[in-house]
Amino acid sequence: MNQSTFGHIGPGDLSLFTDRYELTMMEGYHDTDHVPTATFSVYFRRLPPDRGYAIAAGLEQVIDYVETIEFGESAIEFLTDQGFGDGFLSYLESFEFTGEMRALPEGTPVFPNEPLLEVTAPILEAQLFETLVLNQVGFQTLVATKAARMADVVRRRGDGQALVDFGSRRAHGTDAGLKAARAAYVGGFDGTSNVLAGERFGVPTHGTMAHSWVQSFDTERDAFDAFADAYGDDATYLVDTYDTVRGTERAVAATADRDVRLGGVRLDSGDLIELSKDVHGIVGDAGIVVSSGVDEYFLREFFDRGGVATAFGPGTALTTSKDAPDSGVVYKLTAVERDRASSPSMKLSPGKVTYPGRKEVYRVERDGSYRYDVLARRGKRLEVTGEPRLTTVFENGSCVYTPPDLGSIRERTRRELETLPPRHRRVREPETYDVRISDGLETVTRETEHAIRERER
Amino acid sequence: MNQSTFGHIGPGDLSLFTDRYELTMMEGYHDTDHVPTATFSVYFRRLPPDRGYAIAAGLEQVIDYVETIEFGESAIEFLTDQGFGDGFLSYLESFEFTGEMRALPEGTPVFPNEPLLEVTAPILEAQLFETLVLNQVGFQTLVATKAARMADVVRRRGDGQALVDFGSRRAHGTDAGLKAARAAYVGGFDGTSNVLAGERFGVPTHGTMAHSWVQSFDTERDAFDAFADAYGDDATYLVDTYDTVRGTERAVAATADRDVRLGGVRLDSGDLIELSKDVHGIVGDAGIVVSSGVDEYFLREFFDRGGVATAFGPGTALTTSKDAPDSGVVYKLTAVERDRASSPSMKLSPGKVTYPGRKEVYRVERDGSYRYDVLARRGKRLEVTGEPRLTTVFENGSCVYTPPDLGSIRERTRRELETLPPRHRRVREPETYDVRISDGLETVTRETEHAIRERER
Repeated sequence: MNQSTFGHIGPGDLSLFTDRYELTMMEGYHDTDHVPTATFSVYFRRLPPDRGYAIAAGLEQVIDYVETIEFGESAIEFLTDQGFGDGFLSYLESFEFTGEMRALPEGTPVFPNEPLLEVTAPILEAQLFETLVLNQVGFQTLVATKAARMADVVRRRGDGQALVDFGSRRAHGTDAGLKAARAAYVGGFDGTSNVLAGERFGVPTHGTMAHSWVQSFDTERDAFDAFADAYGDDATYLVDTYDTVRGTERAVAATADRDVRLGGVRLDSGDLIELSKDVHGIVGDAGIVVSSGVDEYFLREFFDRGGVATAFGPGTALTTSKDAPDSGVVYKLTAVERDRASSPSMKLSPGKVTYPGRKEVYRVERDGSYRYDVLARRGKRLEVTGEPRLTTVFENGSCVYTPPDLGSIRERTRRELETLPPRHRRVREPETYDVRISDGLETVTRETEHAIRERER
Repeated sequence: MNQSTFGHIGPGDLSLFTDRYELTMMEGYHDTDHVPTATFSVYFRRLPPDRGYAIAAGLEQVIDYVETIEFGESAIEFLTDQGFGDGFLSYLESFEFTGEMRALPEGTPVFPNEPLLEVTAPILEAQLFETLVLNQVGFQTLVATKAARMADVVRRRGDGQALVDFGSRRAHGTDAGLKAARAAYVGGFDGTSNVLAGERFGVPTHGTMAHSWVQSFDTERDAFDAFADAYGDDATYLVDTYDTVRGTERAVAATADRDVRLGGVRLDSGDLIELSKDVHGIVGDAGIVVSSGVDEYFLREFFDRGGVATAFGPGTALTTSKDAPDSGVVYKLTAVERDRASSPSMKLSPGKVTYPGRKEVYRVERDGSYRYDVLARRGKRLEVTGEPRLTTVFENGSCVYTPPDLGSIRERTRRELETLPPRHRRVREPETYDVRISDGLETVTRETEHAIRERER
């Protein structure tokens, strides 16, 4: 048994993290010398159910990917075995990105049809990125959005409760566990249970006590005594192993007997809302951590019913985005060079319409609130006073953007969400935010569709 | 910008892929010298909705993890900063597994309360593994199950259609994309679009054509001509960019004009079932690949309505297990050494009952069909003629098990599923398979619960 049976994915492996057809297309473009400059746009066709917005996340990982991608010896060897030709493989051996990338900064609310990312490059370069970019941006955006919804409920209804990601065990693999912790922090969480996310991204890590600790002692009281001895002041006791109320009383007694301060208790089963009130009567000012089945819908009910807590530990619902595990984000060709000029392009597949061409997103704010967005053609002067939102990330293949630190991104999310009217932030049936299509873009869309219908008649 | 901003997880990093509370517990066990031998069991409390079985997967990755886990210099440094003590960190520096692990081989159908995995070891060793084991086994089992459901529909209703995983872009991160390809193959798929899964696990890779190829030429016909020139015989043409039927006619014409054999066409939008019949009339014996929104429910409808295809490319539904993105698999302490003898243990948290003690799973087959399972105490002779299913994987910390190759695992899944009566394999409301609790285990469960209630009175 060698180390590789786990399936680790190192920096040199991301070049092969792509759908085979991307390489097939690339080889075709390469071998027929058909390499027009093309623009691909990453966007939501529609937001997942009950989402009034999404929070852009994952750009930093895309930047690192584009900057470090390489086809090493073993990758080339494998592709040779798979039947790819020598000419194309020589090209891959010296692959590097030469194009432009623009993006919405992480932490920005995004709405349907707005580019999260726009890549303009020789078509075979841009083609390669599709799979990995969707995989990273789609997932992190999904989790940042889910986290932002929970953080928003807590900010509006709570009194400063902490939100900590407890979901690594339920995440879909290791990368998901790590990136969910990052994306949750972007969305407004305060920390994670995942230690590696602390080491890798500086997300604050938190942890309490497991049922196994309690079970490994003869009695719950013995377990709490030992915990108080080992951890002293401010530890948190898991109290639901046998009976939540009695467990809480024992945690209070164990800490009192040892003269250490009770940090708090964690509730993990039963009617968490009623129990939180009962337990509050016992622990007073000490912490109450609620950790089973927490999501934005639960949180709303929790506050409606007068639950009492100092922290929440969402798990499954957060890291799998359980009610909407699929972002639906797509990576579509929207422009291609014809006769040396960029020409808008779109598919006509039913129900899957694309706005063609390179774009800009303007966000119009009045009296401290976002009113509507305008989706427009890039580089056309617009008669609106909104702020253009896409930032240039790569120019001529070089990164010209320094990603902010994670704390600043998190702060941006908070600030932006506060500027978005609450009716778009409801957790059920939010009102649709208005994304207006500029007159110019409407015209180009009609013209492009007409031109295609003529050509393909 | 350095390479680590992507967040790669190498072999040396998995030790930190754990919830902080696992390390907190471990430190407590270590520092108070409370290190009883404990047994943890990994199992489903209940199967996800509409699942009549699950297919065990991910064991090979767990083995690799346990064999290679280490706390290197940077991990220790980070844990020092996080406040863990020197004594405990010295222990971690030389951490190795000394215990036993038993498991259901990959490709085995598993039912609620049956151990997918059972770890018996000094409690602090077994505690560490919880997060990563659930993360890997939970996810792969989820995807292998989803894949098996689709493969089962195709085997029963189809005529040898291939199933290829097209879902890497929708998977939750890179590890999920890679492991979903592996797990789908375990479940009965024939291949994946993910090139890295080919390189890493030998899963056959497949790919066709993208919309961008078609859009990058002046007309669809130009695009197909160029594709026929570049790829010759047996290529597959994506025909829905503008109009599926016309696109199909153009693919036929382009290949005929060039005297190359049409491999097939791919349909990716519209009423795929009706279109597949229309297209079949045009392409005859050539392939028809259907690739949008494919899952087991779609497949059943596809065959009900007389759709025609040679291959299916499920994506999102497969890699996110969209209708059930959470396996719900747990890792629970079921026995702990007291007075030098192993003593069964369980939580009493409402709705979360555990069968205590170390276990064996017997599967009773009659006339070529599985009739019921018996969940029993380990090492107690049982009055059933079923075959014990748990295999020893680690003994005294050494791996004593050689995982079969992936093809053999896939074959096991197929064989096992054919032995499971069809009423348990229905994709909606399957009949519950009977898992009987042995008399001995029933008694121990009652006694353990009684003993805890007495102790904790």
